[in-house]
Amino acid sequence: MKTEIKNVELENIVEEINQLQTDTVLIIADHHVWSLYSKDILLEKIENKKVLFWKAADGEKVKNINDFQSAVEFFLDKGIHRNAHLIVIGGGATSDFGGLVAATILRGIKWSIVPTTLLSMVDASIGGKVAINSKSGKNLIGAFHLPTNVWICPKFIETLTPVEKNSGMGEILKYCFLDYTIYDLVIRKTDMGQIIDACAKYKEKLTEEDLKETGVRRLLNLGHSFGHAVEFIYNIPHGEAVMWGMSLLFKLFGTEKNLNDITALKKALEMPGENSPWFNKEFPIEKIMLYLSKDKKISALSSIDLVMIKDIGNADIETKTFDEIQAVLEANKDELRKFTL
Amino acid sequence: MKTEIKNVELENIVEEINQLQTDTVLIIADHHVWSLYSKDILLEKIENKKVLFWKAADGEKVKNINDFQSAVEFFLDKGIHRNAHLIVIGGGATSDFGGLVAATILRGIKWSIVPTTLLSMVDASIGGKVAINSKSGKNLIGAFHLPTNVWICPKFIETLTPVEKNSGMGEILKYCFLDYTIYDLVIRKTDMGQIIDACAKYKEKLTEEDLKETGVRRLLNLGHSFGHAVEFIYNIPHGEAVMWGMSLLFKLFGTEKNLNDITALKKALEMPGENSPWFNKEFPIEKIMLYLSKDKKISALSSIDLVMIKDIGNADIETKTFDEIQAVLEANKDELRKFTL
Repeated sequence: MKTEIKNVELENIVEEINQLQTDTVLIIADHHVWSLYSKDILLEKIENKKVLFWKAADGEKVKNINDFQSAVEFFLDKGIHRNAHLIVIGGGATSDFGGLVAATILRGIKWSIVPTTLLSMVDASIGGKVAINSKSGKNLIGAFHLPTNVWICPKFIETLTPVEKNSGMGEILKYCFLDYTIYDLVIRKTDMGQIIDACAKYKEKLTEEDLKETGVRRLLNLGHSFGHAVEFIYNIPHGEAVMWGMSLLFKLFGTEKNLNDITALKKALEMPGENSPWFNKEFPIEKIMLYLSKDKKISALSSIDLVMIKDIGNADIETKTFDEIQAVLEANKDELRKFTL
Repeated sequence: MKTEIKNVELENIVEEINQLQTDTVLIIADHHVWSLYSKDILLEKIENKKVLFWKAADGEKVKNINDFQSAVEFFLDKGIHRNAHLIVIGGGATSDFGGLVAATILRGIKWSIVPTTLLSMVDASIGGKVAINSKSGKNLIGAFHLPTNVWICPKFIETLTPVEKNSGMGEILKYCFLDYTIYDLVIRKTDMGQIIDACAKYKEKLTEEDLKETGVRRLLNLGHSFGHAVEFIYNIPHGEAVMWGMSLLFKLFGTEKNLNDITALKKALEMPGENSPWFNKEFPIEKIMLYLSKDKKISALSSIDLVMIKDIGNADIETKTFDEIQAVLEANKDELRKFTL
């Protein structure tokens, strides 16, 4: 099973849908996205297929079990079969949600994504991790279910807010450390469509090899252990948090060169030069440690695996005990107060 | 991924649990089963593991999305990790339900089953099909998620009702037509433990080869197209319905030898010789046809695949159009009124 990733013009999405080998198309579209783009994705031009449309609450709001039940029962009530094909139009939250619908309805049907945020184009839409949120935390109820197609239209980026755009850039920055080709495209300030395509295909390659994240796919977690903690503590967008997570990781366990690379890449990606969220405040060691120890990726109780970068394109995984991390954080406490990029 | 199937004495189940490579055990047990057997499965003897216990409503009643949410949130609230192992103690409905919990909690954890009905020992517990019911029908929300272990204790059969026992026998009868070894064990009236083991391992072999039911696994549907229709129309137990489904299939499209084999096998299995549910009534052609056309296994709109038996252990799949089936039913209408075994 492999996902086909393809750059598509917005007005040609319906053409792609028409080519699907099915007589029944289910669509889940983000409410906000649909209000902006329904005029460009003309569902009435879908030919010879039954089309069932379900509108999702904006972004993260849809990722709950009640909305999951509503969507699933809506489609089942209309009488569908296992060869039906679900299409999700929206950002990462919408595809997380829609992917779980596709994974479980009739024990799993095929699905495709039209990602509408930069973050989703380069990250969330690839690799088949799908989920809704639980009362106990984000993404705790889910599955692995690869989409058949990801149709990328860079045009959606035009209507993103600067914050949403910046969040996507944070993940692109991460890929630069994992893959020299992407680094080179970014540093040379190549066309964004090409950069997105390279990131998506790089992630696709790793997830194809290791769907369940027991091997190489773990490299994609670069910056994510500290990043998730920072995202939670300061309530900042995911990609931005990953950027600060990498910065922290490099500051504590990496090299001066790692940090200089971040600065150069931020500049090339035209990311705003804001201060770190903890700048001039007390660095929240206790909260960070608490969050790290609750990470759902940990399998041992006393240590965590961190992705480290020797040089651009040269990553490996090092296990660090919580005691070790805590000691390094304590030793750098004063310096971190002033640390930014 | 493979399921290990093992005959275990009731009082040794805790020993099996103790050997699991995990520090966290989640248990979902059927309410009725637990009231009978909690004295034999002593959870307090589980050593060095956190044990979280969730009691499920009896049988089919638990297979709804509200109970699914309750169970998932219960376990997540207690703080579990991906290496937690779920154990389901109950019949097919409980393992359908518990398997979906295991498939989706933290995007999937390992699980094992202690099947407590004959039907579940030989059928439902094997092969990883898990699901809950939707408002639109049974098993429409689910996944494929293989259990790690199936621990079979034939002792549970002692407390089954005759109807439950007979339902399990219907599925065993089905296996006799698919596999000569099982046929031989049954005809020679071998020990039931050995027969159960052979059936479970036969199904395991087919599902290992073809998890998603696109190839050989489809043979397991012998008798199920008519069987599901009969189950729904007359509200009779699954295995019994499968037996009548096979009988109908053989009467309409099979041979006299097929029918004689059913009679001999019913006798060997000591199944009661009741009349067919439609005996001396009008045969419900219209309802049968309506149900066949709604089967979630159909992928074309005008035909259905039926498993046919040339001789014991020699099965293949034949596609029949709905028109063809209807014509044969009409032609045999009067004879079917009197048809029983």
